[in-house]
Amino acid sequence: MNLFNLDNLSREDIMEVINLAIEFKEGKEVDFKQKKLIGNLFFEPSTRTHYSFDVAANRLGCKTINYTEENSSSLKGETFYDTVKTFDMYNLDALVIRHSKDRYYDELTNIKTPILSGGDGKGDHPTQSLLDLMTIYEEFNTLEGLNIMIVGDVTHSRVVGTNKKILERLGNKVYLATPEFLQDENNEYINLDDKLSEVDVIMLLRNQLERHAKSIDLSDYNEKYGMNTKRAKQMKNGAIIMHPAPFNRNIEITDDLVEGNNSRIFKQMENGVYIRMAVIYN
Amino acid sequence: MNLFNLDNLSREDIMEVINLAIEFKEGKEVDFKQKKLIGNLFFEPSTRTHYSFDVAANRLGCKTINYTEENSSSLKGETFYDTVKTFDMYNLDALVIRHSKDRYYDELTNIKTPILSGGDGKGDHPTQSLLDLMTIYEEFNTLEGLNIMIVGDVTHSRVVGTNKKILERLGNKVYLATPEFLQDENNEYINLDDKLSEVDVIMLLRNQLERHAKSIDLSDYNEKYGMNTKRAKQMKNGAIIMHPAPFNRNIEITDDLVEGNNSRIFKQMENGVYIRMAVIYN
Amino acid sequence: MNLFNLDNLSREDIMEVINLAIEFKEGKEVDFKQKKLIGNLFFEPSTRTHYSFDVAANRLGCKTINYTEENSSSLKGETFYDTVKTFDMYNLDALVIRHSKDRYYDELTNIKTPILSGGDGKGDHPTQSLLDLMTIYEEFNTLEGLNIMIVGDVTHSRVVGTNKKILERLGNKVYLATPEFLQDENNEYINLDDKLSEVDVIMLLRNQLERHAKSIDLSDYNEKYGMNTKRAKQMKNGAIIMHPAPFNRNIEITDDLVEGNNSRIFKQMENGVYIRMAVIYN
Repeated sequence: MNLFNLDNLSREDIMEVINLAIEFKEGKEVDFKQKKLIGNLFFEPSTRTHYSFDVAANRLGCKTINYTEENSSSLKGETFYDTVKTFDMYNLDALVIRHSKDRYYDELTNIKTPILSGGDGKGDHPTQSLLDLMTIYEEFNTLEGLNIMIVGDVTHSRVVGTNKKILERLGNKVYLATPEFLQDENNEYINLDDKLSEVDVIMLLRNQLERHAKSIDLSDYNEKYGMNTKRAKQMKNGAIIMHPAPFNRNIEITDDLVEGNNSRIFKQMENGVYIRMAVIYN
Repeated sequence: MNLFNLDNLSREDIMEVINLAIEFKEGKEVDFKQKKLIGNLFFEPSTRTHYSFDVAANRLGCKTINYTEENSSSLKGETFYDTVKTFDMYNLDALVIRHSKDRYYDELTNIKTPILSGGDGKGDHPTQSLLDLMTIYEEFNTLEGLNIMIVGDVTHSRVVGTNKKILERLGNKVYLATPEFLQDENNEYINLDDKLSEVDVIMLLRNQLERHAKSIDLSDYNEKYGMNTKRAKQMKNGAIIMHPAPFNRNIEITDDLVEGNNSRIFKQMENGVYIRMAVIYN
Repeated sequence: MNLFNLDNLSREDIMEVINLAIEFKEGKEVDFKQKKLIGNLFFEPSTRTHYSFDVAANRLGCKTINYTEENSSSLKGETFYDTVKTFDMYNLDALVIRHSKDRYYDELTNIKTPILSGGDGKGDHPTQSLLDLMTIYEEFNTLEGLNIMIVGDVTHSRVVGTNKKILERLGNKVYLATPEFLQDENNEYINLDDKLSEVDVIMLLRNQLERHAKSIDLSDYNEKYGMNTKRAKQMKNGAIIMHPAPFNRNIEITDDLVEGNNSRIFKQMENGVYIRMAVIYN
């Protein structure tokens, strides 16, 4: 079964994935005896998504084929479709695909191997959202009725799209707090400090410095738009800080908070493996 | 046993490989229990050859070590021989090697690990030829008495060399149809349209755009030298189109034909895995 | 247990590793049944260290996750610590790390996964030293009382640091013979020819051409500072030539000596796999 986004997953479907991931985290073992082959096709750089899918597959007793564009026939002008179709002919058990193009999967309707998306352009990043949901669920024991503030570079992030949609659908209040120079007209924005003391979850986004048209002075970014000790003290009791990573230290978040008490950043990474085990296993 | 080209393989040897590949395609299972290690040493970019060897090895229950030049000591000036000799000292069960140098294997006589060539310069590409033969055999139930036309960039292709030699030795008639500007004096050439309606197999070659000394206007290439709907209609009943890929869409072949009824292009890719399983297993 | 250098390993510890490596070389089998996962994190190019760790892990029935910087979030500005911490969250059984920074591990005290160093800057390279010691031990059946001359680019080499320290600690006499233009004030140097006929082991170092500030004329390097037939004849009976590789042929050593009778260069590579098996197994 393909996983391109979370649009077709009900609350029950999502809880099923999360519960399975939690079982894996608690030690549930599955062993495909090295019989299953998972292809990792990353057309964009990635650390967490690529390697946690790789680790997840291996933990399940699958083997992985790791395609990287720079040693490939893409250099000889092969189209994206033809590269994926090539792997489709190899009868692998699943293909994990990341590509810089929004909805890259629209041109892959002819592919019969199940595709697990590792992110499409600025579109969706379903396994990231699932691991975020799992992290929230572990914390609050619920996925509804929470107040969540997404902070940062909304316009360049594929994390925000999927997360906002699914969190709202599940019955949470989602605020977007974005620096003025990064705001667009598609959304309503608040100021980070306005809701700081009310929200349960602060989800920071990475400043995608490499995608900005012009270089931006970020020397006062943290003070104006980022998390630091001063702001952390204003958070309500039990509230947590999340970030999909990679993060820019002392821009989105100061060093002292990264592994601080209310940060779940590295826990998100840990959960990423279990969510991807659940997604591959399904 | 080394596999550098098909020169020392008799008709019987070749049929043995093809029949074994067909058995694998039909589901024959072999499991080396992760005890065998295959080294993939690609000194040139590759998608199909590299990854289908990787998949093939994994399907047999082997594990693979994937060497890529850009993370290696080649950057520090290590010679090709010394890199291969290094892997030779690791006692792997086979080395799959691709290198841009013609007959690269001539300097590897001192290597004791079996070498399976993934292509040498403009020389040979034995597993590609075997998978082409398998595809032809599946189609016509014979490997002799056929008329085959190889079309395209003959001078830059290592596919054509091995294929022409072996197809002729097995008793087929092979025509070369090459654009005038790509012809050399070593071969006799015909016009694509002259034999279009008579041949059983049209083997297209990739325009190796990156190897051409000067850039060439290809806007009328397909009309003059490529496969398109008009020409496909002139093909005789049951004739097939092949291409080793990667292909340049709408240059060597128009979009509508790539996955058309008489195209075997993606079937070739599928067969590539089974042929490589047979070659590794042998 | 971390392995950053050999400083905390006693003579007995070292002999334990070497003896275990020799057992593996003689055929001892261990099979972790693909349950253990080893992460190879190379932040610098490497052939021997990377691939022999990869082979070693696979021979033990472990699986490997191979991180390369160029497809990663390092491109997005992620810090070294954060990348390693990410892998730490994946609960692998060991991390093999190479980094260009001296004592990179000083900032990794918070990492709970055992780290096996694959080399830190110009600092240490413990598994290289262990394989060198194993090679010497196999030859002389002892690790003390030997005369050893290290020849070449001392200032740029991390091999020399570990080797000099450990060889002296184990009770050997170590001479450094370095071209004048590469000498620094931290060490005492001799002329290669002064001790040529007295030493048991000549350890050549690679000229790290890529790290030299200015390009150097190496046309007479071999004659003045390198090993060649003339010098080989002056070596005492039973003396051996070693080199950590990659080597520059006809600079540090002439072609005819590389695989000559008293060269152990490729044997060092072979031993590298067994030493790394022992280190992973421990």
